[in-house]
Amino acid sequence: MNATVSDVADWWATGVCRMEPGVVELRGIPVQDLIGSTGLVATVWLLTRGALPDPREAALLEAALVAAVDHGPQAPSIAIARMTVTCGVGLNNAIASGVNALGDVHGGAGEQCVELLNEIVQREADGQSLTGAVAEVIGKHRYVPGFGHRFHPVDPRRDPLLALVDQAAADGVVAGRHARAARAVETALNTGRAKPVPMNIDGATAVIYAELGFPPPLARGLFVLSRSVGILAHAWEESTQGRRNKGPIPPAVLPTYLGDPTG
Amino acid sequence: MNATVSDVADWWATGVCRMEPGVVELRGIPVQDLIGSTGLVATVWLLTRGALPDPREAALLEAALVAAVDHGPQAPSIAIARMTVTCGVGLNNAIASGVNALGDVHGGAGEQCVELLNEIVQREADGQSLTGAVAEVIGKHRYVPGFGHRFHPVDPRRDPLLALVDQAAADGVVAGRHARAARAVETALNTGRAKPVPMNIDGATAVIYAELGFPPPLARGLFVLSRSVGILAHAWEESTQGRRNKGPIPPAVLPTYLGDPTG
Amino acid sequence: MNATVSDVADWWATGVCRMEPGVVELRGIPVQDLIGSTGLVATVWLLTRGALPDPREAALLEAALVAAVDHGPQAPSIAIARMTVTCGVGLNNAIASGVNALGDVHGGAGEQCVELLNEIVQREADGQSLTGAVAEVIGKHRYVPGFGHRFHPVDPRRDPLLALVDQAAADGVVAGRHARAARAVETALNTGRAKPVPMNIDGATAVIYAELGFPPPLARGLFVLSRSVGILAHAWEESTQGRRNKGPIPPAVLPTYLGDPTG
Amino acid sequence: MNATVSDVADWWATGVCRMEPGVVELRGIPVQDLIGSTGLVATVWLLTRGALPDPREAALLEAALVAAVDHGPQAPSIAIARMTVTCGVGLNNAIASGVNALGDVHGGAGEQCVELLNEIVQREADGQSLTGAVAEVIGKHRYVPGFGHRFHPVDPRRDPLLALVDQAAADGVVAGRHARAARAVETALNTGRAKPVPMNIDGATAVIYAELGFPPPLARGLFVLSRSVGILAHAWEESTQGRRNKGPIPPAVLPTYLGDPTG
Repeated sequence: MNATVSDVADWWATGVCRMEPGVVELRGIPVQDLIGSTGLVATVWLLTRGALPDPREAALLEAALVAAVDHGPQAPSIAIARMTVTCGVGLNNAIASGVNALGDVHGGAGEQCVELLNEIVQREADGQSLTGAVAEVIGKHRYVPGFGHRFHPVDPRRDPLLALVDQAAADGVVAGRHARAARAVETALNTGRAKPVPMNIDGATAVIYAELGFPPPLARGLFVLSRSVGILAHAWEESTQGRRNKGPIPPAVLPTYLGDPTG
Repeated sequence: MNATVSDVADWWATGVCRMEPGVVELRGIPVQDLIGSTGLVATVWLLTRGALPDPREAALLEAALVAAVDHGPQAPSIAIARMTVTCGVGLNNAIASGVNALGDVHGGAGEQCVELLNEIVQREADGQSLTGAVAEVIGKHRYVPGFGHRFHPVDPRRDPLLALVDQAAADGVVAGRHARAARAVETALNTGRAKPVPMNIDGATAVIYAELGFPPPLARGLFVLSRSVGILAHAWEESTQGRRNKGPIPPAVLPTYLGDPTG
Repeated sequence: MNATVSDVADWWATGVCRMEPGVVELRGIPVQDLIGSTGLVATVWLLTRGALPDPREAALLEAALVAAVDHGPQAPSIAIARMTVTCGVGLNNAIASGVNALGDVHGGAGEQCVELLNEIVQREADGQSLTGAVAEVIGKHRYVPGFGHRFHPVDPRRDPLLALVDQAAADGVVAGRHARAARAVETALNTGRAKPVPMNIDGATAVIYAELGFPPPLARGLFVLSRSVGILAHAWEESTQGRRNKGPIPPAVLPTYLGDPTG
Repeated sequence: MNATVSDVADWWATGVCRMEPGVVELRGIPVQDLIGSTGLVATVWLLTRGALPDPREAALLEAALVAAVDHGPQAPSIAIARMTVTCGVGLNNAIASGVNALGDVHGGAGEQCVELLNEIVQREADGQSLTGAVAEVIGKHRYVPGFGHRFHPVDPRRDPLLALVDQAAADGVVAGRHARAARAVETALNTGRAKPVPMNIDGATAVIYAELGFPPPLARGLFVLSRSVGILAHAWEESTQGRRNKGPIPPAVLPTYLGDPTG
């Protein structure tokens, strides 16, 4: 066994925080200097990006995080958390199972949309026309992430989020290129179609995350933080209603039997 | 099968949000009225409590949520998330497993401390002396939740949080009874002991949650929201470091073999 | 930093397996000596109990594990796994969230029933009458774990499991005391009641686990292993059906809105 | 709301089991006909494949499932379960978090190796030479899944598993094409290399799963069932050792602080 205790300490090396007895520093800032003066959203930024944001950046991020907190018990993540909490586990376990469902299909559209917008913006920076870049990039997708909704004809969260991005761009807080790219995607998707494919909440929040410079995987991470609020609220409500072992449908409804699918 | 579609709709009844095509209302407020004007912490309060808080209540809650975001990779929740993200799953899965560990022992002290403080305050309201109430209530516990720390001799987060509670009490935002109870517990625990058992982060945040009227299980829920920030930041950092299948210790260190424990 | 590398190795000490380059021993047996000659259920016993079982003990355990593999998509664990797998995560994540729901209420009845049967058997060993022991022990419970079912008037798994226990008792493989205790509980619960409260699958498997000497928490662990089979089968079936983001009810059914529950 | 209760029943349609009051049928077989006569591994096959296996197929599958039950606490899945169970949650929650880590990198090599072997076998069936097929297929991978091990120079589980496959091929139970392909991959990888890249446990079990006709994603599912046994045993052992909030390293070892990584 040739390893040393230093190797063990290095195995868990981190720049996120420094811990010593009596000391908790987050990205170099003593935690006591944050308590009471720095908001939760700015702290999210500090921990994930390494330094505190401009307050106007934090405000734009905060709007995106508020917008996505909940979308009702028809969303698998919410339903799962509600069912889990009736099974005799803690609220943390119920939240965990809800968050666990925020995968590529349920919670990943924001991440994929940031990638898509980044690619369009990069192509523009490299000299391609916006229209051309949009056409090529969306041509790769069967479902263009961040656009279209099976429930809302117009998502009520789209316009207020884009208005805030526009204001931030006007104020010089962000460059506005990703917002412009997203609107160009929306136009391209809707040209010549009977049923529109409008930007959805994943698209509108992706615009914000991309404008603020978050790497794509953090778009999913931020969505997790946001949706955890709704997951908690629903799990808590369910736990106060007293059901035990809640299934997906009332016990009086029996699932259809499909027969032997290998027959 | 006697159930109706209404029974199915009722099975998933909720007061947290109202969803219709084009409509997302959170506790009766259209989501578009929150975006850009309401903070994330006030939205947490809205969803879990049913109405928006006073801004000074939200500020006090925000301080507690900021204080607990991270305590380093020695905490099981953080280490678990870091290890999980190296195994080829999404950030959401890594966060889920971290949150899943915030059980009665790791994340539950806040919940238990709110219960303990509520009981002391109730006993006082019923006419018992504070000293008597504290003695009886802490006598029930082997580990008094919210007090003592195996790492910090003095937790750097305790004093700034209590100072904010005191200010809120002076301003009439909270009553201050739970803070008084918590200090009385600390005094009782430290009387006649060589090694102090100071209030820790779970205790200091429990004071705030209790003063603000959160039911005990929500203390754990709020801790989950707070610690999720650190879990995300650590999982993200780990994912950028490139390890695959990270175990708890470097591969060169082999776990001790205990022999046949049944022998 | 006073710790040594030995302290680190001891931190992860285990008697379950010994690992060295080229060596994998399970409870002292080289893994290559198990492959092809020892069954999976005997291996479960080996790892959890420390030594291989008698083949007749393994057969009884195997019957209990087979009996509980599935109870359909109305069970929260199964529904959760099916919903999760449509959200863009791996089968392992879907199974994890299903298993996460096997808590005190959904998967814990077996554990609680083993405790209850152990207590009755202990009271008998201490000289109390069986009838008296049963009456006192079941009097502590609002729901007697392992008895009663909201779906099956008679659980089809009860009789074959009890017949196997009886045979094992006749063969001297087990003592038969827990089976006798469980039948006495059933008799006591059904005396003078219009609607019977028969032993259910948790009760019948708890009899087996208790007769075989598994500590109560392992009853839950064994149920997890068993139900994981059904969870996998359902998640896999769902993943072949092509739904994305499957919610608990069809999108055309909207959850009932409860209004402001704080109003 | 135009949906009917039939739509709701169809939303949860399944061919895995048929449930009615008093009835539990698994893939068309009443559960009581399985209890006591059908093994757990044959039941795994029944539920995932739709019909019972030949006993020699079940025996081969059983060997693969036994081989992979445990690989010690240095594996993230095992360490995570052990840490989680010290945090005040149930054994089911600890197992869930262990299983959650069996992602593309930790538990997915088997799935990827089945895909790789299937492709080689298909290319051979289409007329390509085995050597040519192997060269083209392994050329696509940086890490060839199922081959190489950072710990074992020779994995002790490889030879006994391949011997069982060879016997099954000699007996006409399986065709033996995937075993031949896997050995050809091993030869190709080791030609001209100082350090060998031998077939590992994921490769050897993938040969069996592929020979038995399991679709690739089920290879991961089967590994989850197998490793859950070890995860349970380790979580249970840890829970009897009494640690609370177990971190990855002893408290006396502090993680190295990396400084501000953005600086």
